[in-house]
Amino acid sequence: MKKVAILGASGYTGTELIRLVLQHSQLELVAVSSEKYARLPVQEVFPAFSGVLNLTFHPLLDGGPLQSAEYVFLALPHKKAMEVVPSLIKRGKKVIDLSADFRLRNPDSYEQYYQKHSAPELLGTSVYGLTEIYRDQIRNAQLIANPGCYPTASLLSLIPAVKNDLIDLTSIIVDAKSGVTGAGRNPVLPSLFAEVHEGVKPYKVGVHQHTPEIEQELGSAANSEIQLLFTPHLIPMNRGILVTAYGTLKKKMTAEDVLDIYSTFYKDDIFVRICPAGAFPSTAQVKGSNYCDIGIFVDPRSNRLIVMGVIDNLLKGASGQALQNMNVMAGFNESEGIDQLPIVP
Amino acid sequence: MKKVAILGASGYTGTELIRLVLQHSQLELVAVSSEKYARLPVQEVFPAFSGVLNLTFHPLLDGGPLQSAEYVFLALPHKKAMEVVPSLIKRGKKVIDLSADFRLRNPDSYEQYYQKHSAPELLGTSVYGLTEIYRDQIRNAQLIANPGCYPTASLLSLIPAVKNDLIDLTSIIVDAKSGVTGAGRNPVLPSLFAEVHEGVKPYKVGVHQHTPEIEQELGSAANSEIQLLFTPHLIPMNRGILVTAYGTLKKKMTAEDVLDIYSTFYKDDIFVRICPAGAFPSTAQVKGSNYCDIGIFVDPRSNRLIVMGVIDNLLKGASGQALQNMNVMAGFNESEGIDQLPIVP
Amino acid sequence: MKKVAILGASGYTGTELIRLVLQHSQLELVAVSSEKYARLPVQEVFPAFSGVLNLTFHPLLDGGPLQSAEYVFLALPHKKAMEVVPSLIKRGKKVIDLSADFRLRNPDSYEQYYQKHSAPELLGTSVYGLTEIYRDQIRNAQLIANPGCYPTASLLSLIPAVKNDLIDLTSIIVDAKSGVTGAGRNPVLPSLFAEVHEGVKPYKVGVHQHTPEIEQELGSAANSEIQLLFTPHLIPMNRGILVTAYGTLKKKMTAEDVLDIYSTFYKDDIFVRICPAGAFPSTAQVKGSNYCDIGIFVDPRSNRLIVMGVIDNLLKGASGQALQNMNVMAGFNESEGIDQLPIVP
Amino acid sequence: MKKVAILGASGYTGTELIRLVLQHSQLELVAVSSEKYARLPVQEVFPAFSGVLNLTFHPLLDGGPLQSAEYVFLALPHKKAMEVVPSLIKRGKKVIDLSADFRLRNPDSYEQYYQKHSAPELLGTSVYGLTEIYRDQIRNAQLIANPGCYPTASLLSLIPAVKNDLIDLTSIIVDAKSGVTGAGRNPVLPSLFAEVHEGVKPYKVGVHQHTPEIEQELGSAANSEIQLLFTPHLIPMNRGILVTAYGTLKKKMTAEDVLDIYSTFYKDDIFVRICPAGAFPSTAQVKGSNYCDIGIFVDPRSNRLIVMGVIDNLLKGASGQALQNMNVMAGFNESEGIDQLPIVP
Repeated sequence: MKKVAILGASGYTGTELIRLVLQHSQLELVAVSSEKYARLPVQEVFPAFSGVLNLTFHPLLDGGPLQSAEYVFLALPHKKAMEVVPSLIKRGKKVIDLSADFRLRNPDSYEQYYQKHSAPELLGTSVYGLTEIYRDQIRNAQLIANPGCYPTASLLSLIPAVKNDLIDLTSIIVDAKSGVTGAGRNPVLPSLFAEVHEGVKPYKVGVHQHTPEIEQELGSAANSEIQLLFTPHLIPMNRGILVTAYGTLKKKMTAEDVLDIYSTFYKDDIFVRICPAGAFPSTAQVKGSNYCDIGIFVDPRSNRLIVMGVIDNLLKGASGQALQNMNVMAGFNESEGIDQLPIVP
Repeated sequence: MKKVAILGASGYTGTELIRLVLQHSQLELVAVSSEKYARLPVQEVFPAFSGVLNLTFHPLLDGGPLQSAEYVFLALPHKKAMEVVPSLIKRGKKVIDLSADFRLRNPDSYEQYYQKHSAPELLGTSVYGLTEIYRDQIRNAQLIANPGCYPTASLLSLIPAVKNDLIDLTSIIVDAKSGVTGAGRNPVLPSLFAEVHEGVKPYKVGVHQHTPEIEQELGSAANSEIQLLFTPHLIPMNRGILVTAYGTLKKKMTAEDVLDIYSTFYKDDIFVRICPAGAFPSTAQVKGSNYCDIGIFVDPRSNRLIVMGVIDNLLKGASGQALQNMNVMAGFNESEGIDQLPIVP
Repeated sequence: MKKVAILGASGYTGTELIRLVLQHSQLELVAVSSEKYARLPVQEVFPAFSGVLNLTFHPLLDGGPLQSAEYVFLALPHKKAMEVVPSLIKRGKKVIDLSADFRLRNPDSYEQYYQKHSAPELLGTSVYGLTEIYRDQIRNAQLIANPGCYPTASLLSLIPAVKNDLIDLTSIIVDAKSGVTGAGRNPVLPSLFAEVHEGVKPYKVGVHQHTPEIEQELGSAANSEIQLLFTPHLIPMNRGILVTAYGTLKKKMTAEDVLDIYSTFYKDDIFVRICPAGAFPSTAQVKGSNYCDIGIFVDPRSNRLIVMGVIDNLLKGASGQALQNMNVMAGFNESEGIDQLPIVP
Repeated sequence: MKKVAILGASGYTGTELIRLVLQHSQLELVAVSSEKYARLPVQEVFPAFSGVLNLTFHPLLDGGPLQSAEYVFLALPHKKAMEVVPSLIKRGKKVIDLSADFRLRNPDSYEQYYQKHSAPELLGTSVYGLTEIYRDQIRNAQLIANPGCYPTASLLSLIPAVKNDLIDLTSIIVDAKSGVTGAGRNPVLPSLFAEVHEGVKPYKVGVHQHTPEIEQELGSAANSEIQLLFTPHLIPMNRGILVTAYGTLKKKMTAEDVLDIYSTFYKDDIFVRICPAGAFPSTAQVKGSNYCDIGIFVDPRSNRLIVMGVIDNLLKGASGQALQNMNVMAGFNESEGIDQLPIVP
């Protein structure tokens, strides 16, 4: 049994971590922090957890409960995480940080999209936690920069194409659709029910902060700098991300050709499923699970490739992948505690 | 390992059974039937199950695959179930029937609300599968009549009050609210997205077929005939039932008094959780779980009791409870395979 | 052409008023206030109104623009309204106040459910703006207390029964279901999309602030004090209220008997429609319109009456009725500017 | 007053036509057909229209009531429309056909995406009813082929760019998102609430039947053949289409440059609104209205143009535009009966 703590446990990714950790056979949840609900019992704030745990939210970094934790999950807002990580690292904790703070290797990029970085010295030590790609490095990492939700879906959808040199690197467009939990649990006007329901809209077009993260990792895969166009949209649903990614094929291929390459690429990855030819994924088919399902279409007229990838943004896009990474770090079965099947419907 | 089959496995309760059985550590799913999808692989029809099972839908009662099953779940439409059950019973199968066909002990009631019963001789042998109430009888039953979704929520909410003689039996009103999966997966006009979304409506007011089922079981608990008013409403959501049940208290009591009685009544029932005083349950807090959460309000002015009970209609209201019953029958831990925590949000 | 101003024009009832006033053939909108958006063009904040008006939000009570208005609609929060109304009255404006501040004739009731009243001297002068009931008084009023959304639906559903002495006054239960816009446009946690979507829940059970308002007006109709049980529920939809009201009939009646009485009662009221026998209303059938549709069921076993009433909470439940009242005050056709048919679906 | 009939009046575009025609000051609705509801009063089938009309659905082409109609709207399924149109034309009716049957000038295209055409001789006589583009031809047409919902949004978004030679014609990708009413009111499995809710998915990728329609009209605008990639997605909402259209600019331009061109292009079109720089449209801001709102983004890194266009698919995407065309044909004010402001929220 490993002892784990969750800092920032009252947001949507935080409560999802609580849920997953409690269902994990080899983890003991010893501490959960929340400034907002400090000193309140978890089950009073979240009646869904009534009767299954006996913990009280504590203020961030409160000494006692955190001390015994070997693994610490950070579900804190950006900026807050980088204030906390250095001291956790010093105390020898293994840290899985769900914020963006240690994902970008270039502090200037971070500054451009977020703000000045307060712990740039750690940027070189973090491992980008896209498990399927960095599994070996994750095994021995102390600090995991857990990927963003959009980047997870985008990268899993595009890396096989890019690694196998299938598409023109200047041709990539990612048209992404996300449920509302991606925006977090802060009470802000654009997240109100009546502002979101019965509508679909693009937002942060061409300037979303996940763009450099996708470009960095896709560039790594391509061994070349990549610039792409990323257009996020807000969908009136709780969970789920669909990316519809477009790229021009370098040579004539069929969907079956591409499917073969993708199937081979992910043949050992339990959480990536490739749809059969002619089938395209819905976010509904991965809801509540850690799966990323990928479908392929090739337009014979324009020789364009469309890759469609779906995830549950709170699982594979955040807390599920965080636990997947922890499983790798701890030498557990990679799917331990996150092998729930999708909820249908 | 017990071998199980699911007949009628392509409706919403059927696929939920597939999901739960696959996640159960001591069950092996050996056969699934579906007329509609006969001879198609399950994972082709339901990509959510892609990669996790290797079964093909077979026509109902197709000999081979069913033969080895010790337990058979029936998620068939009403009427269809009673055609099939007698032969299953004869072949020695243990049967958990999710239809209404063996719930009403009185064949006239069945005929009034459904149609003429074709196997009335079995009505006396079935055990009503409300686990918390009939656990002992379930243990040794061969045929379980798994309760309806509305009756499960209504009965768990009202039986403690009735058994403890708290309320006037002529005063009971059950105002119930259900998500759309309760209506099944048949492509009918009233279940279309655009017919349901952005609206709430009562339906089958005062004549819903679950009324006699609730009255029968509440009457048993009260040891007296009961007639109540049952008003179902359709809510634009996939899963969840909330019953708001009203009754006049026989004597002056506080909510705390009633809560004590309910807590005592359900003290050994892991799947029933009583909300603390002043808290009322949301269906959201049990979504994806087998819990029934119950809240209590007493109006001091009118001395009326309001009991609010919530369930996930596909779990505690159908397939989850079916598995709970099977666990009891097989001597497994009662929560085996259905101990998933609620999905939040 | 009458000149009108809207104070508090950036909430959901405020923007609905803008929409309705702009579509009214005999009104000119001369001023809109919003503290939050002061000095911003309306169409910049609400692109839905782009190209159709040329107004800028001004701070509350800003002299200039308000001055020319003959009619002032107040869509301000409770408390704020009563601070503003006295000065408007003094300046001779005709005021339609959508807040609760002038609805309760008894300042103690107001204090119990809201706070201490700051303008109790005006309580006797306001007319309760339930148009169908108080049309004659509204005609000559200077200050209209526009009814709450729940009270509008509850009162229109119950007043004919109470006025005609059909039901036992101690037996009334109102089980109400509301969409989320009823909670306003403030960015608060319980109104977030992911907190509301895929769930239904009761709230403020037995203590909702609309209770005394319903009791006051129902008591007036009955010529007797009334206490009832009011249980509001939150439904995952933008617009709509359904009340399911229960009462015990004093003598044996059929649904048809009751329907006759209701049809007669509302025979001259264009915005109240009585469903035929056996039909029950959905909020969907009044969405976007000023209608209140009412259905009747009588349970022959218990002799209980169920009245089901539906409204669009932003129209008949707020801004639509406000305009209806203004039409009456100004001597316009009562349906002018609010005769849009329901949006289906 | 012009007399109009609606054939196929019980689907979503049909009922929307009923609503709009009833609200039009210069139209009289004399006949509505529906095979499904033949001989039932409209208000019994659609209680939303209760009290506002006194018509009974008649079987298709039933002589009597249709006879007096000067204008006939066809909201029939594809194929059915082309069976009916020739006889209507012969009888001298002015026909606005909302089906796809007379949109494609090339019968082979029609055959490829739909089936063999039964009235190819009329293909040359129909006018494509994209009002903003074909206003002059519409004025004198007898047969209007009212555009599809996706084509309307796609074409209004892209024609100004193409006409002004802004983008590389081989670079166009249209990623479209639609609400569920676009699929019609047929009770089919994929349109069920629980199949759609809480999910987003692509469908008919690269092969959707609206592709040739968009290509034909965009090609006309470009005076050149065009092939584009069209990817439709289903969004869990009733109404609304958003197209996110991508194209590579031929020369360096800013968003402001493009906005100027679009604003000029649509300067006389009351129903097309151009969002200010930096603002992107939501379907919510046109819901219930006939507007098409368009936003522009230019990615300076890739010199790609993104045009985002939103419509209400039942208004500008179908019935609203049909009435707009009729207004043009009849010499009415173009916005008569369709000038309702968007419903917010």
